Amino acid sequence: MTMTIPSPFPKTERTEVRRLPKRAAYDHETVHAILDEALVCHIGFTTAGGQPVVLPTAFVRLGDRIVVHGSVISRMMKVLAGGVPLCLTVSLVDGLVLAKSAFHHSMNYRSVTVFGTATVVTDPAAKAAALHGLTEKLAPGRWDALRPVTAKEVKATTVLELPLTEAVAKVRSGPPVDDAEDLSWPVAAGVVPLRLQAGDLIPA
Amino acid sequence: MTMTIPSPFPKTERTEVRRLPKRAAYDHETVHAILDEALVCHIGFTTAGGQPVVLPTAFVRLGDRIVVHGSVISRMMKVLAGGVPLCLTVSLVDGLVLAKSAFHHSMNYRSVTVFGTATVVTDPAAKAAALHGLTEKLAPGRWDALRPVTAKEVKATTVLELPLTEAVAKVRSGPPVDDAEDLSWPVAAGVVPLRLQAGDLIPA
Repeated sequence: MTMTIPSPFPKTERTEVRRLPKRAAYDHETVHAILDEALVCHIGFTTAGGQPVVLPTAFVRLGDRIVVHGSVISRMMKVLAGGVPLCLTVSLVDGLVLAKSAFHHSMNYRSVTVFGTATVVTDPAAKAAALHGLTEKLAPGRWDALRPVTAKEVKATTVLELPLTEAVAKVRSGPPVDDAEDLSWPVAAGVVPLRLQAGDLIPA
Repeated sequence: MTMTIPSPFPKTERTEVRRLPKRAAYDHETVHAILDEALVCHIGFTTAGGQPVVLPTAFVRLGDRIVVHGSVISRMMKVLAGGVPLCLTVSLVDGLVLAKSAFHHSMNYRSVTVFGTATVVTDPAAKAAALHGLTEKLAPGRWDALRPVTAKEVKATTVLELPLTEAVAKVRSGPPVDDAEDLSWPVAAGVVPLRLQAGDLIPA
């Protein structure tokens, strides 16, 4: 599969940010960095009955594709494999923005929203590459040390890929933006940084 | 509004977990604890054109309701205020589960999924309580020190509430579950704990 993804991503009816457009970014570098840092995405789809469903799942970006996996008997995998429209969103919370007024409180965050439809990866080499990518994202360099994947395990796993062609990032960073007349209000204001911190391995 | 929410939450067509049902929890205590710890939820809804959309937003649980807010000109607020079916999901990632085989790699997590429809909060006292709750969640005890909210600010804000009546938690915890024949495979296995860590306030 060769295709050229335009950079920046084109603004579409679905991705154009109308509220606070200065927070939007369409360049590949920003979108990729957020996708590569986030461990979990939230996938939204609509059931045949018209019910929206949002489920969290692991994922990895491999070039211009996003890959997710699940059991072949997973309902979400079956629905998404049917080619329904989906929305995949990731968000990273970077800080609590504490202002002088409640109204200007906010959060610093980086999010990405991707629209598209997924297809099932059936080619064995592509499927192996996807499982490799998903594992290496959690623990870089670990794959080669693991007990090798078996054909039975590959068969029990559905791998889906979503082309990364229609995406937008939204980013808020920096200090609170208070009203000028509030700046002398006697309460501390600023940002409490938040960071996902990894501890030491707890051996099994 | 008085209503009694049954505990545990009833299993419905939408909330019953069929895959790995042992990870599901329907009791209020588990669901509330996850909702109260998570800073951001992901709300899924379907547009008139049939497109699912998932957007992250701040939220707070107030008793048996979930409250979100946004600008009165926000598209998501307008769509949700129309009473469309929605799905609100939160997820907390607690650890990377590193097994002896790629197949048994996993993540420890706690998630909650809520189904329902939102309604606009118009009562001024209820609206004030919602804004208070949203602010206090970010910084407990801060509200009383802030420059008071103005009528103009309240007017510029849409507050929506979602009854917490149809919800389910999913939780994975503990070490990897390896195949018996892999236990002597020579690679370290266990859990890398992950935790959202707050730093010191960076003054504005």
